This record gives sequence, C-alpha cells and structure tokens, in this order.
Amino acid sequence: MPKGQPAAVPDDGLTTRQRRNRPLVVVHTGTGKGKSTAAFGLALRAWNQGWPIGVFQFVKSAKWRVGEERALRVLGASGEGGTVAWHKMGEGWSWIQRPAKDAEPDNPDNAEKARQGWEQVKRDLAAQTYRLYVLDEFAYPMHWGWVDTDEVVEVLRQRPGGQHVVVTGRNAPAPLVESADLVTEMGKVKHPMDAGQKGQRGIEW
Amino acid sequence: MPKGQPAAVPDDGLTTRQRRNRPLVVVHTGTGKGKSTAAFGLALRAWNQGWPIGVFQFVKSAKWRVGEERALRVLGASGEGGTVAWHKMGEGWSWIQRPAKDAEPDNPDNAEKARQGWEQVKRDLAAQTYRLYVLDEFAYPMHWGWVDTDEVVEVLRQRPGGQHVVVTGRNAPAPLVESADLVTEMGKVKHPMDAGQKGQRGIEW
Repeated sequence: MPKGQPAAVPDDGLTTRQRRNRPLVVVHTGTGKGKSTAAFGLALRAWNQGWPIGVFQFVKSAKWRVGEERALRVLGASGEGGTVAWHKMGEGWSWIQRPAKDAEPDNPDNAEKARQGWEQVKRDLAAQTYRLYVLDEFAYPMHWGWVDTDEVVEVLRQRPGGQHVVVTGRNAPAPLVESADLVTEMGKVKHPMDAGQKGQRGIEW
Repeated sequence: MPKGQPAAVPDDGLTTRQRRNRPLVVVHTGTGKGKSTAAFGLALRAWNQGWPIGVFQFVKSAKWRVGEERALRVLGASGEGGTVAWHKMGEGWSWIQRPAKDAEPDNPDNAEKARQGWEQVKRDLAAQTYRLYVLDEFAYPMHWGWVDTDEVVEVLRQRPGGQHVVVTGRNAPAPLVESADLVTEMGKVKHPMDAGQKGQRGIEW
C-alpha cells in the first residue's frame, strides 16, 4: 500500500511519533472473501516485529484455518519472530449447521462459548498478554447479541499499552465500526460458487 | 468463510470434483486495505497443502512486505509445507516517488521492468513452476498500460495444469475482472491516515 501524507493533522496534543504508534482497532467486514486471510496476513507483519500474537477463533469447523493455524504455529515455534498462541473457542461449532447465512446456529451452547471466549480476551487485554489480537469471526457473536457490542467497544477503548486488535466477520456492528481506527469492507464482486464451483483446498482452507 | 451449496450447477460437462479443483484466477482490488495481506493469507493455505508458491512483487519499497517476505521464506525453508520463491521486480520502485495516487511513476525504466516481470511469470506458467502465484500489485502495470491486459487474460485462460493465480492492486482492469473466477473489492470505510495517523510497523509493513 502507498504511504504518504495524512489528510489532516488533528489537534490532539500528540506528537507525530505518538500518533503513529497509537495501537489500532482494525475491522474486516463485508460479504466478500479475504476478511480472515487479510487478518492472518497482518499477523505475518506482527510476527516479523517479534510481537506476541494471540488468535481467537470464534467459529470453528474441521477444515477452516488449518493452513493458517499450521503456518502460524511453525512461525511461532521458529524462534525467528514473535510467538503465536492459537485459541479455539466453541470446538464443534460449524457454519454448515446454520439454517441460513445470517441466522444463529441452533446450538444453545454456542452463545455461552462465545461469551467465555470474550472473557478470555478481556483477561488477556488487561494483562497485556499479546501485542496483536486476531479475533477471527468475532463480528458474528456480537451481531447475534451473544456478546454485548457496547461492552466490547468500551473494553477496546480502555485497553492498556500498545495492543492492536483485529476483528473479522460479516455484519460488524455499527458501534464497533464507528469506534475502530481502520475498517475495510470486503465486497463480493464474483465468487466461484456462483458458477457452481465448491470450495477447494489450498484456497478455502 | 461459510461453505454451502453453489447457487447454480452449470451444464459444463464437468463432474463436481473436476469443477471443484478447477484452478482459480483471484483478484483483490479496490481502494481499501487488505488486498495484499489477504493474498499472503491465501499463501499460508497453499503452503499448508505443500504447494510451490511463487511471489512476484511488482511494486517495491524499502519496508513493504518485509514481514510477509521473511515469514514466507521461513515457512518455505521449514520443510513442513510448500516451497516459496520470492521475486522482486523493479528494485528501487517506490510509491513515494509517485506524483499522485493513480499517476504513473516517472521512472521510465519501470515499464520495462514490469514487462520483464510479466515475461518471467509467463515462462513459469508455461513450465508449471508453481501451484500458487501471488502477482502482488500487478494490477498497476496493467492499469498504466505497461503490460497488455488482453494478453494477460489470454495467457491466464490458457495456462496449463492446476495453477492458481492471485492478482492484487487498485484499478484492476475490467477484462481481468471479467475473466477472473473470484474477485473481491476491498473498500475503504475508514483509515487511520484520515485521522492524521501515519503508517506504523507491524501494521503497514
């Protein structure tokens, strides 16, 4: 991506360096592909900086993220960059069981698992356990009302230190988008499934 | 990402398996962040499949992609997944020297370097050197007319074997988008630079 001059310099009392290193809340939302892959791409940069990385996977199925998980585990164990901790919440969740794209999965345990995952994230933020948090698919539990969006916004606003947080998922709630620093909407222009092609290894997982 | 049933099953004479494993041309375009990071996230999946990966970096500056490059080199050398070959074309190119966002850099050598890079990609496609090609920022030389878009479309259409190709960059030309299998438009909703914050390490590079 190009670098250049910011469009406006705010009157916030910060030096350019302080402003530059202000930790970010990043949101990848929209109906297109690339929300999570871009988050894991960011994790490569964080790894290269030697940052501890925490991945919290809020939606799980047998195949998804296996490539990302294995790659990040190999990187974390290499000793050449940051560490990687990979948390899977809600083992056994599956989009496949969903009745429809935006409907809640019908497993009543999922709401509780999502809340437990968020409680873990809160503890880690308070303890400054990681420098980059990838909250993968975390937009969904907020969208479904399982985790309170206003609380998430407030916790992120008050998080200590230099912790960057990336949230992915469709339907990112408006208060989260409003409070985030960097928001990208991945829009679907074209998808192979529209042409009758199912997902394949190496591409979808 | 959710998996499910395709919207339509085409009458193309292929079995589901054949259609499923049909290699893809993927385009990440738009003005938002995440185009390249999502491409490198895809590379993690390809690596996990043991696929040889070829990265062709069509725009270069001192800091960009250093994290991705180092991570992918460590992964490629780990022996636990696919190999990684990283090609930098146009060493010394820099967005910073650009007069404006969509204008051509004023270095006349760049067009020739881009063409040389594309010739290398063509040779590798013909030889089936890689299974995944990341043509990073390759949309620009097409947009600027340095590389002929129609030729690119034709070469991609006729590429042999099971080679997947990802092209990133703003202003992806319409013929490329039309011929691609999977296209995502990364739209900018909000960027820290709008609030006076410059790029920072671990996030932008």
